Amino acid sequence: MLRMLVLVLTASIAFAASPEQAIRRVLSDQVQSWNRGDIDSFMRGYDNSPHTVFIGKSVERGYAAVLRRYHERYPTPAKMGKLAFSDLSVNILGAGYASVVGAFHLTRQASSGGDASGVFSLLFHRTSAGWRIILDHTS
Amino acid sequence: MLRMLVLVLTASIAFAASPEQAIRRVLSDQVQSWNRGDIDSFMRGYDNSPHTVFIGKSVERGYAAVLRRYHERYPTPAKMGKLAFSDLSVNILGAGYASVVGAFHLTRQASSGGDASGVFSLLFHRTSAGWRIILDHTS
Repeated sequence: MLRMLVLVLTASIAFAASPEQAIRRVLSDQVQSWNRGDIDSFMRGYDNSPHTVFIGKSVERGYAAVLRRYHERYPTPAKMGKLAFSDLSVNILGAGYASVVGAFHLTRQASSGGDASGVFSLLFHRTSAGWRIILDHTS
Repeated sequence: MLRMLVLVLTASIAFAASPEQAIRRVLSDQVQSWNRGDIDSFMRGYDNSPHTVFIGKSVERGYAAVLRRYHERYPTPAKMGKLAFSDLSVNILGAGYASVVGAFHLTRQASSGGDASGVFSLLFHRTSAGWRIILDHTS
């Protein structure tokens, strides 16, 4: 009985992670997925919605278009390289939305395109599936 | 008396503009200010706060830093050129926040740097002064 109470309390504490903790967790899960070469799992950080937007050199609208772009640009683990984020700042925007600003660093062999880095701003929305990216602007 | 009532009603209708209308108005005011060569007036579209962020080639934090960057990069009306926005989409994020995605086009003499264009994503917050940009990512 006590053991069960402890389990329930532990689960409640995990569930009660702050929005900022939950968002940082989504991002660290994305980094882990990327560094395993698993784009489909990396994409779980994005809202699976036709309204999800990715702005890179052009504007892609819809989860399917964003997924396609990642598969086209990063067809192999070598082209994906190793990803790290830095300088993350999380800004909670009232109920259910948050913005994140940060920098990315991609470490790659020269034959796969070499290292790359840049900055990004993300808009997160708390969906029924958890915090998900609805807008990603990377430059 | 009737005239006064009409004035009051007109003012009320103007105040009751939808969030999207109010935000589009801030952006069209910015374009007009820019095209008069008036950066200080253009900057009224941004929240006058140390938390305001501009992401271009680097990340500038705070209204004062953003203002300084505009004055340094666009010291004369010739360098400012003529600005236009296109493909604006406004997404209201619950109470008090909105995101805007769009494209900018700068028409300039070659001697002043030539034409330039790109995409931007903005985060707006409804402040006591009205809707203001709190995050601008332009690439």
